[in-house]
Amino acid sequence: MVQNRKIIMDCDPGHDDAIALIIAGAKSSSLDILAVTTVAGNQSVDKNTRNALNVLDIMNRGDIPVSTGADRPLIKEAAFAESIHGESGLDGPQLPKVPNLKDTNEHGVNVIIDQVLQSNEPITLVATGPLTNIAMALIQEPKIADNIQEIVIMGGGTFGNWTPTAEFNIWVDAESAKKVFKSGIPVVVFGLDVTHQLFADDAVINRFNKIDNKVSDFVVELLKFFKSTYKEQFDMDGGPIHDACTILYLLNPEIFTLQNTYIQIETDSALTYGTMSVDLNNTYQKEPNAKFATEVDVDLAWDIMEQALRSYQ
Amino acid sequence: MVQNRKIIMDCDPGHDDAIALIIAGAKSSSLDILAVTTVAGNQSVDKNTRNALNVLDIMNRGDIPVSTGADRPLIKEAAFAESIHGESGLDGPQLPKVPNLKDTNEHGVNVIIDQVLQSNEPITLVATGPLTNIAMALIQEPKIADNIQEIVIMGGGTFGNWTPTAEFNIWVDAESAKKVFKSGIPVVVFGLDVTHQLFADDAVINRFNKIDNKVSDFVVELLKFFKSTYKEQFDMDGGPIHDACTILYLLNPEIFTLQNTYIQIETDSALTYGTMSVDLNNTYQKEPNAKFATEVDVDLAWDIMEQALRSYQ
Amino acid sequence: MVQNRKIIMDCDPGHDDAIALIIAGAKSSSLDILAVTTVAGNQSVDKNTRNALNVLDIMNRGDIPVSTGADRPLIKEAAFAESIHGESGLDGPQLPKVPNLKDTNEHGVNVIIDQVLQSNEPITLVATGPLTNIAMALIQEPKIADNIQEIVIMGGGTFGNWTPTAEFNIWVDAESAKKVFKSGIPVVVFGLDVTHQLFADDAVINRFNKIDNKVSDFVVELLKFFKSTYKEQFDMDGGPIHDACTILYLLNPEIFTLQNTYIQIETDSALTYGTMSVDLNNTYQKEPNAKFATEVDVDLAWDIMEQALRSYQ
Amino acid sequence: MVQNRKIIMDCDPGHDDAIALIIAGAKSSSLDILAVTTVAGNQSVDKNTRNALNVLDIMNRGDIPVSTGADRPLIKEAAFAESIHGESGLDGPQLPKVPNLKDTNEHGVNVIIDQVLQSNEPITLVATGPLTNIAMALIQEPKIADNIQEIVIMGGGTFGNWTPTAEFNIWVDAESAKKVFKSGIPVVVFGLDVTHQLFADDAVINRFNKIDNKVSDFVVELLKFFKSTYKEQFDMDGGPIHDACTILYLLNPEIFTLQNTYIQIETDSALTYGTMSVDLNNTYQKEPNAKFATEVDVDLAWDIMEQALRSYQ
Repeated sequence: MVQNRKIIMDCDPGHDDAIALIIAGAKSSSLDILAVTTVAGNQSVDKNTRNALNVLDIMNRGDIPVSTGADRPLIKEAAFAESIHGESGLDGPQLPKVPNLKDTNEHGVNVIIDQVLQSNEPITLVATGPLTNIAMALIQEPKIADNIQEIVIMGGGTFGNWTPTAEFNIWVDAESAKKVFKSGIPVVVFGLDVTHQLFADDAVINRFNKIDNKVSDFVVELLKFFKSTYKEQFDMDGGPIHDACTILYLLNPEIFTLQNTYIQIETDSALTYGTMSVDLNNTYQKEPNAKFATEVDVDLAWDIMEQALRSYQ
Repeated sequence: MVQNRKIIMDCDPGHDDAIALIIAGAKSSSLDILAVTTVAGNQSVDKNTRNALNVLDIMNRGDIPVSTGADRPLIKEAAFAESIHGESGLDGPQLPKVPNLKDTNEHGVNVIIDQVLQSNEPITLVATGPLTNIAMALIQEPKIADNIQEIVIMGGGTFGNWTPTAEFNIWVDAESAKKVFKSGIPVVVFGLDVTHQLFADDAVINRFNKIDNKVSDFVVELLKFFKSTYKEQFDMDGGPIHDACTILYLLNPEIFTLQNTYIQIETDSALTYGTMSVDLNNTYQKEPNAKFATEVDVDLAWDIMEQALRSYQ
Repeated sequence: MVQNRKIIMDCDPGHDDAIALIIAGAKSSSLDILAVTTVAGNQSVDKNTRNALNVLDIMNRGDIPVSTGADRPLIKEAAFAESIHGESGLDGPQLPKVPNLKDTNEHGVNVIIDQVLQSNEPITLVATGPLTNIAMALIQEPKIADNIQEIVIMGGGTFGNWTPTAEFNIWVDAESAKKVFKSGIPVVVFGLDVTHQLFADDAVINRFNKIDNKVSDFVVELLKFFKSTYKEQFDMDGGPIHDACTILYLLNPEIFTLQNTYIQIETDSALTYGTMSVDLNNTYQKEPNAKFATEVDVDLAWDIMEQALRSYQ
Repeated sequence: MVQNRKIIMDCDPGHDDAIALIIAGAKSSSLDILAVTTVAGNQSVDKNTRNALNVLDIMNRGDIPVSTGADRPLIKEAAFAESIHGESGLDGPQLPKVPNLKDTNEHGVNVIIDQVLQSNEPITLVATGPLTNIAMALIQEPKIADNIQEIVIMGGGTFGNWTPTAEFNIWVDAESAKKVFKSGIPVVVFGLDVTHQLFADDAVINRFNKIDNKVSDFVVELLKFFKSTYKEQFDMDGGPIHDACTILYLLNPEIFTLQNTYIQIETDSALTYGTMSVDLNNTYQKEPNAKFATEVDVDLAWDIMEQALRSYQ
């Protein structure tokens, strides 16, 4: 089941989104990336599209089509994570202002709808940014739900990073996140509880630095910048490679500990907007609507990433 | 300015929507209907599409394209007004189950976006149902705002009909309504304060009955059914022709008294969800974002409607 | 039943509170005022106490004890209606800064609890300000509910005066109002729908001016000031004698049209905070928890007031 | 400063409340307990009063007056923690149905107000139950704030036990908690982050069992019952002695790591009601309003408790 899964990557690259893309699109990967769609999140959607195109170019994967999606959340105003990802959304490496690759000129929401409807096998959506595009697709064409195998997201957790109780991706567009968790589609969640276990300190950076190909060098530059902003914002000694967890799970699900649980998203209050309520104690005695990752085998995770990077030579 | 306005009618017919369509599309009308788009509201979107097609067929206006839009609100579950409009959404007259006309097979949201973007003069949106399609179009393609002259809506008021404080169209999808009022686009509002002045009692029904053409006969059947449900639900002696106010305004704005005011929509509380806060006393001292109709010259209104019906023979 | 009812007047005088007190305490009145308790509302609680003492002094009713209650709402910050009642809370007449009468030095909440618990017949609470004291008494000593005949309040309505949808007394402390309506105690409500029918224009002021005793002259001064602020704030040609409705009802219930209905108070949203949901159409099909006044026989109302004022000489 | 602090213990005993009382009132203690006030929480307020009287009797401290406070939260319905503390609120040991000691017959809220106002040195309030009494005292007599040195509470944390995000004491009456945190009075918070470090497993129970006096035997019975319900409800191998942290802090503040931070309480949403937002990353850049305990020296904590229990012979 895990082999040759067809996926759409809905993302806002973003340092860790970029790494997720790189692992997913590596020669060593068993995943078939049908499309990349972008969404406002870490930066404006136009910057995120530019970054996606530049990353795919470095990966030499100009065959993967990129389409620009929503430039703002469903209900709230747009808000970006410039303090973490810099002014370009992918600060650190030098990248062309005008990418060599071009986007499709179709709206990302329509791309998701069309790809899912026309596929003769179920599609997996990988969402490493706010869930706006996926929510809009579900509103506009509810029957896509029948041909989605899983939605694998990075977002949330039992504690917050953007507010004391909310994680950035969910906080940006909690209404869309709520819609995804109420959709009935299987959701797999990689929240801060597990992504903070996978942080790239100097040891990791040095290890990747030794691989020494164009893509691995690019990743090293990303990780160095990411480490610097995490130090500044959160006093952590490395940036957690949040988004990469989604792809690591698709490649090697067994390295994660997952708990079936009932997840709800807070949208009614300004103070706790975007908080993820993860019912690990089964307080509500509700049918689980998600798998929530609680642990990762960190050593295996870095091994898989190294292998992916090495396959780029 | 009023002559030959290009309009898109976004609606959920619905007895009073049907009458609005009939007046707008009459030979006597100065309005150019580019498209009809349907939305879930008085009944399911599929029933509303069927009704729109049947009404246009009776009007002999198969030239106007009909496209089906959102089948549910942006955030809430769908809810229909069966107690008012019956099981078909247009109970009363006998209508074919399978209309003679066909819809376009394009999604209503995309039709709104495309029509507005490609028009070389500003478009007026007439919304006589929940505002879901318009909100979705504004999220997906925010730049349509630049080519919309006015959004003319039936909805809201300073009191409610579906709950003690909320009117049906706004209550069905208050998040979409809120987005429209915050869009910066000029909005003209015909709420219950004015639509309840225009109710079709026996005198009106008798008057229209004397016109005696196919379309006027159809309208009489609609009004009789509408009167019966308003008697049952609200103990009123006639159905208010709510939605027709929007078209009457576009044909003869001077028959309405309009007040510039600041309107907000309640979305945060279950109890008052969908309540329209109309700041007629200027409590908030905010720049007006809407024109709110407070009075209509009832006699002139019926005259205009009679004239429109007579123009059908 | 109406004769010799024992009442506690919980108030924030306030021009119309003062008139309510004057009618209730007149020689012609059948009401037995056990206590006056004051609450923050039209002005700070200390000013309201001072005003109550001054009014009772003018009435020559130093026998009625006055106790100061809550200086702020249960949850919200305090807010006053200076634009309507002036800096003193009773602007217009000249009144002593230090009243001749003294308050009891007991807390108003404790006075309500003690009076109700020790009375051998049920007490009627008359509330013409925010409902803070009554809510606090109900929280602290829930069993007082068993010995309260009715809570007769001025507050709310199907439209607002302080915000587009909320009336001042309810808006000041909606949490307390909600508690009262959920208490199970019979509540009679005089909201803006009926109090705006009873507004003191020049004709009324002239009529009272002819009575010519100390108390009626004082009332005339109050009405003149009230008229001036209502002109300024609401463009009305007289001040509605809101609070007096409660006492008129206790003296002559038959002059009011009352509808049994289910009333809820909005506390969850900033926009509509304090809105009263009055289910006159029985949308919710809930057991009524209140009588809501929809009409008053205006002529009889003024007659009763004139009679009360004349009884003062 | 720590020596001979005058405290009022506002509590809902409750196994861990009982232990807090026992440590505070031990011969070895430097604290002067002016009063015990009870509040609805772990069980009904009447059961909590009965438990407090029985515990003080076992402690041979009939000199400490007990007063019953609020029987329900400020706004919400009452809710009890029967699954943790049993039907009596103090299941485990055999206790008299009718205690030998009597309560004062004064309301707990009035006791707090009177004690604080009449004390010639600042009082410390220790709150180990919902904060209803303290909030009501602050509403009724705001000037008590000037003579309160600190409010030391057990409640909240960065995760929940009663819901996925809320701890029981705060969840029972979040409106009261919010009022305390907005009062401007210094607050010291022992939430689940630290109380879960201090859980009484078999090793602790055995250690206390060896002390072998009447009070220590009673504590052992409490801990055994507590361990059984924590196993059942949370699959933990011992009950956390939550409430005792407050007294341990007053006796030996240096065993805790405290962080100055800005704390807010969620009251607007049903899903996250009672969630404590602890801004440990200083996201909001607000002036701290509380000290939040993040760590405890567990070994020292048990030593202090053992010493207190030994002082009872």
